[in-house]
Order: sequence, then C-alpha cells, then structure tokens
Amino acid sequence: MRMYDIIAKKRDGGELSREEIRFFVQGYTAGDVPDYQASALAMAICLRGMTPRETGDLTLEMAASGDTVDLSTLEGVTVDKHSTGGVGDKTTLVLGPIAASLGLTMAKMSGRGLGHTGGTIDKLESIPGLRTELSREEFLRIVKQVGLCVAGQSGNLVPADKKLYALRDVTATVESVPLIASSIMSKKLAAGAQCILLDVKTGSGAFMKTAEQSRELAQAMVDIAAHAGRKAAALITDMDRPLGNAVGNSLEVAEACAALQGRGPADLTDLCVELAAGLLVLAGRAGWEEGRALARGQIQNGQAFQKLKEMAAAQGGDVSVLEDPSCFPAAGARLPVLAGEEGWLTAMDTALCGAASVELGAGREKKGDAIDSAAGILLHKKPGDYVHKGDLLAEMFAASPALCRRGEEVFRAALRFGPEQPEKRPLVLGRVGGA
Amino acid sequence: MRMYDIIAKKRDGGELSREEIRFFVQGYTAGDVPDYQASALAMAICLRGMTPRETGDLTLEMAASGDTVDLSTLEGVTVDKHSTGGVGDKTTLVLGPIAASLGLTMAKMSGRGLGHTGGTIDKLESIPGLRTELSREEFLRIVKQVGLCVAGQSGNLVPADKKLYALRDVTATVESVPLIASSIMSKKLAAGAQCILLDVKTGSGAFMKTAEQSRELAQAMVDIAAHAGRKAAALITDMDRPLGNAVGNSLEVAEACAALQGRGPADLTDLCVELAAGLLVLAGRAGWEEGRALARGQIQNGQAFQKLKEMAAAQGGDVSVLEDPSCFPAAGARLPVLAGEEGWLTAMDTALCGAASVELGAGREKKGDAIDSAAGILLHKKPGDYVHKGDLLAEMFAASPALCRRGEEVFRAALRFGPEQPEKRPLVLGRVGGA
Repeated sequence: MRMYDIIAKKRDGGELSREEIRFFVQGYTAGDVPDYQASALAMAICLRGMTPRETGDLTLEMAASGDTVDLSTLEGVTVDKHSTGGVGDKTTLVLGPIAASLGLTMAKMSGRGLGHTGGTIDKLESIPGLRTELSREEFLRIVKQVGLCVAGQSGNLVPADKKLYALRDVTATVESVPLIASSIMSKKLAAGAQCILLDVKTGSGAFMKTAEQSRELAQAMVDIAAHAGRKAAALITDMDRPLGNAVGNSLEVAEACAALQGRGPADLTDLCVELAAGLLVLAGRAGWEEGRALARGQIQNGQAFQKLKEMAAAQGGDVSVLEDPSCFPAAGARLPVLAGEEGWLTAMDTALCGAASVELGAGREKKGDAIDSAAGILLHKKPGDYVHKGDLLAEMFAASPALCRRGEEVFRAALRFGPEQPEKRPLVLGRVGGA
Repeated sequence: MRMYDIIAKKRDGGELSREEIRFFVQGYTAGDVPDYQASALAMAICLRGMTPRETGDLTLEMAASGDTVDLSTLEGVTVDKHSTGGVGDKTTLVLGPIAASLGLTMAKMSGRGLGHTGGTIDKLESIPGLRTELSREEFLRIVKQVGLCVAGQSGNLVPADKKLYALRDVTATVESVPLIASSIMSKKLAAGAQCILLDVKTGSGAFMKTAEQSRELAQAMVDIAAHAGRKAAALITDMDRPLGNAVGNSLEVAEACAALQGRGPADLTDLCVELAAGLLVLAGRAGWEEGRALARGQIQNGQAFQKLKEMAAAQGGDVSVLEDPSCFPAAGARLPVLAGEEGWLTAMDTALCGAASVELGAGREKKGDAIDSAAGILLHKKPGDYVHKGDLLAEMFAASPALCRRGEEVFRAALRFGPEQPEKRPLVLGRVGGA
C-alpha cells in the first residue's frame, strides 16, 4: 500500500477502504507518512468529502492510535457530553452534577479555552485548590466515589488527532465535516462512555455559523457513534448570544452554582435540563418529558448542587466558594458599561463577546497563555431587551481599569441596537438521534 | 499576507491575485512556505482549478524564480519545441536541424528519460564524445555558430518548478492542467525563445490519455504564452503507438539520421515536417502549406542532415556514427520476437513498450540510474499491420540474452491481435493556435 495511491483515490472522489484509512492514520501517527502527504489528503477530503462509513472508520482508527480509557468496571451507565464550543457555555458544571445525582456515571475529560471560546478545565480551576491534572487511578477512584469527575486529558489519548489537528490548523483544512466529526468523536470514543450527548452550537459565537451546517455535523457524529457501537444523540443549540449572563471563569462557576440552586438564568437552566433529559433517554432511563422532569427535580431537591460540591471536594477544591461565590478572589477592577442610546438590543456578536473576555484576561489567544480567573463579563441586557439611555448593559471585570476599557471597546462593537423588537430564536434548534 | 488565507481562498474556489501567487512562489522557493502548505494548495488547485489569468501569473512567477536565458543577442527568430513525452519520440533530433537549416535559431535545453518516456539528452549522449553539459557561454557560442544546440539544463533555471514538481510527484497533485501547463511553460519562458511549438502527445504512451485532456493542456499552454507575450502553438499528436520504429538511444539517433536523409518512417518524418511548418508559421516565415514544403525541401537537399552533423561536431561528437550508424557500439545481445499467431496487430500499449525498453536497459526507473545506449527495440510491425505466424514482430537489443528475454516478456504484453483491421488514427489529432 502506498500513501500516494490513497491520496490519488480520494482526489478522484473514491471511497477509501478501512485498510487504507488505517495505513494513513497509523503511518502518520508513527511519522512514516510525512506532513506534506497528510495535508494533501486532508485537502482532498475537504473538497471530496467522505462517506459515513469512511468517516466512521477514520474515527475508529484515530481513537485506536493511542491510549483508551476503560470504563467497563464502573457501575451505572457511563455518559459523556461534548459541546462544540461557545461563549458562556458552563453546561458541564450543571449537567454533570444533575446526571450523577440521577445515578449516571460521568468520567469526563475536558479541555482549556482557546480564542473566543472558554474551556471547562479553566472554569473548574478558578475554584481554589481544585486539581484537574489527575492520574488515571485517581480519576477513576473519584468517578467511583462521586459518580462524576472532570479532569484534563491525561495520557496519550488520540495522538493521531493531536498531530492531524495541528496540521489542519495551518493548512486551511479545518472546515470539513468528516474531519471535524472524526476529530471530536475519536476523543469521545477513546474516553470510553457508552452514551454520548453532543451539543452542537450554531450561530455567531459557534464554529458552525448556520443550523444547516450544524445539523450536518450532528448527523455525522451520531452516525460515527452508531458505527462504533455507542449510543449518541445531538442537540443543535443557539450560540447567537452567550449562554447565560456570565462570561469568565469564576463568574461562570458562580452562575452554574446558581443554576443548580434554581436561581440560574432560564436559557442556561433550560439547556442543561434538556441535555440531562437526553442523557437519560440514551441511557434508557426515561423518555424526553420524564427526563426533563427528573432533571428539574434534582435541582429543586438540592441533590445536583450537592453532587457538584462532592466532586469539587474530591478534586481538592475549596467548596466554600460554591456555597458563597463572594468568597472567590475578586477582580482587580470593575467597569460598568452603560447604554449610550435607547432602543431594542437586537443582536450581540457572540464571537466578539468572547474576544472581549480574552481582552479582559479571561481567555487566551494562544495555547499556554495565562488567564485571570476573576476576569470576565456579566451581562445585564441580552438581545430582545429594550434599553434606555444610561441603563447598565454589562459589567467588565479585569486586573486593571485599562484592561476593563479594552474589553469594553470590543464588547461595545458586539452590540447592535434597532427600532424594532428582534424575533425570538429558540434555544434548541433541532435534534439528531435519541428518538 | 498569510499562506493560510491563500490556501483557504483556493479551497473555496476563489481566484488568487498576482500578489498572492507571487507570495506563494517566492516563499516556497525560499523555504519560508513549508511543504505541507504547498501540497495543500496544490491539491486545492487540482480540485478547484485556476483561471487562465492565474495559470499565466503562476507561470510568470515560477519562470522568474531563478536564472533566465537571454537570447536577445542572437540573430534570427529564436524558436523552441516541447514534447509532453512519449516512446520513440526523437523529433528534436530531426526538427532542430530542419529549423536551423531554414535560418531559425534553436537554443534548446532538454531533459533525460524517466520511466517509460525517453529524453533527448540520453539520445544525444549515445553519440560518442558528444557533450550536453555545456557552460552558458559555450551553449550560446554553438547556437551562434550553428543555429542549433541541444544541451542539458544548466544553471539555476526555475527552482520553483523543481521544488514544486518533486512535491507534486509524491502528493498525487501532478494531474492538474494549470499545474502541468505552468510547470512546462515556466521552463520554456525561462529558456528565452520567442516562438514555442508544443507537441502534446495523447494516447496509451502519453501522460494525457485522451484527446480532450490534451486539447485542454494545449490551450492552457498557448494561453500562458500569450499572457507572457510569446508566440506559441500546439499540435495534439498520436502517442497510442511508438513514434517511428526505433525505441532506445543510439537506435533512435540512427532513425533520426535516416529521416533527415529521406529514408525515415513516414510517421516520424510527417510529424517533424508538421512541427517545422508550425515553427515557420509562428516565426512569420510561411503559411502551413508552404512551411511543410520548405521543411521537406531541407530533407531532400541534405541541408538538414548537414546541420545535425554540424551541431554534433560542435558539441564534441563523433560524426562518423551519424554517417554510418553501424559504427555505433553494438548491444551485447539481440533477440528476434516472432509472431505466435496470425491476425491483425490491433494495438500496442505504448507505455508498456516504454517499460520494455526500460527492462532492456534503454531507460531508467528512477533518476540517476545508468542506461545502456545500445539497448532498445526495433519494431518491424506496428498496429494496422497483418501478421502471419512466425513473422518478425520486433528485435530486442540489450547487454545480455537474459535482459532481452525480460524485455520481450513486457513487450509481448503490450501487443493486441484481432480478427479485424483496426481503424487508422491520424498522426495529428488537432491544433491550437498558430492560425
């Protein structure tokens, strides 16, 4: 078998066999296939596509390229969730505790924020003392004990994806549904859960800008799970505005705690309830309606919030900040952003909101940059609200007044005002699988 | 300007500006653009294509990436010819002398054979003593003196093409009309001639398998010449059988000499006359009919053959082998190939014929392989001939009987016999430009 022939076959629109895909993935991971051949193939895939079978095989081969996590010794149905990334997306911090409190087992590996999107690991690390770098043994011990643990990726998980993604990132071959879907799902398969719920974000703050693109990606990922013998469903959800009102790490943890205590913003709470229902459906524990009711019940009875505290404690975190978010270290400066005009707030460019939070110090432009856990944005108005001149639109939090002003400048650029009330966009735009 | 954006633009079907193309070509030549980005762009070009303007600009930028030859001090109209490569293609050895004997000036750089196709430099070097590695000064001195010189590429001519071609060769991005056309024409532009005649081969022994593909390539190359302010025309000619009867280096020189003395195979002579007429048309010296007559006249009056001998002598060659090809060093072994059946010879897979000549030692599988100047094939039957059992089909020449047998085995696989006379295919299938 020759890499040349594999590239030529895909260039000409052919369907690659499992063996050809394995030859590529193993060869590239081992360094036998050079970057310049891998990028030519990636471009051919971008332009020629892949059949569901090819995408499934690519995912399986990537998942098998390194360590995999064995969750078979755990009790309960193992579940996982993946969001394609957004601004203010703290759903894992709410959904995980709800699911675990209902007896589902979530051994979750999460990532850090990059660019305008945040990451769960950064959010959790705003809790003083909480560790996310756990050994495999420690991770599984906490999962057994609490039913929930969220840690950074450990070990040599899916090295093929690490290498291929870095290459795609510099060769303009990121934008391909089969490549995006296999990248995401290879990590989910390697992480071992039986049931996988996918939250595909769509809109100005999401990687996928249209509902159609999002549905295509969702379908590809659900198909991969079926190909791999796992259960999966996907929700296509709105990211045309930040989720909830908090953007920034400790601010988002505080908002997640509020949601778990029944005091969260409706969009965040509703989405987490929907996601929890989805997990219950996949696990065969309930239908959608019953699942939603079960999830809301765990918020009302306090058991979900209790679960978050158990997990945080098990991971070495100071639980007092969860009980009383005013105990979080305060930001160095705060700047209120007031409305300069009157009218309807018609839109909020969500990627720009994320960019504003990066200016404030809450996110990072490139891997390895330090972040300020206390920095971020609290929104007081969201699209669909009517605003009078002088109204408080939002608060900026950062280490210094100068940084607050830089964040404010970017944030203001994200806002659109108009004379007419904008149409209300539903939070959940569609669903794939989980019937 | 970022290479990433240039790749993304072409991936999405956009048209690259002259500046973007220059950024890529200069950056890649200098080593600032890595192979993996160049191969991603090459694949995007393969699948998205290029407009004539883009292809023209790519060619100009590649031609400008290294040294260029200045022919402006030479007398007469400077002409050049390029064949896309075939089996038994010794036209340069016939056409060059005809053109020079008519007062056209041909300062030609040629290549070596690779794979199933031969190269003019290998053929010329079968003439004892003849040197093709000439300094720029020596090369131009001989052109001034004789009106004709054929040398290997000297200096740092079109380094961008050298590097890009080597990359395309291992990334399945060779098969792209804009990339093929710009690769060929960048070298022709750098070589400096005013008039360029292109011989685009089509059929089983050619890179382009169909007349349609060949016409597309021909049009692209003629367009490039116009974009660059040069004159060009292209003939689309048959390579569904070897040209002439000789395949192999000294065998082909002998056949070229026969053609220049009016004793050559009709297909070779006719094609060279057609090509010479094309050069005269481009040079503004004659119409097609008049050009053909002029070319035939130079064969009949012996001036064209005289010109070949002048050139060979100027390049240090032993002219006696041209006068009497039996003076060429003989091959170590000869094997007649006899017909095992009766019927029409309907087809001859020309790439396989070339492969047979490689087995015999007349060609090379990879760059740098040594070749046997005396090895090769003499055809005694060609498609369209009726064959009786025991007829001599061809002779194999090689260093040993064992090599002859290996060549015979491949050669026999190239032959197809049938009960019906095959249709006659014209030698010149079409023409682009040169109206």
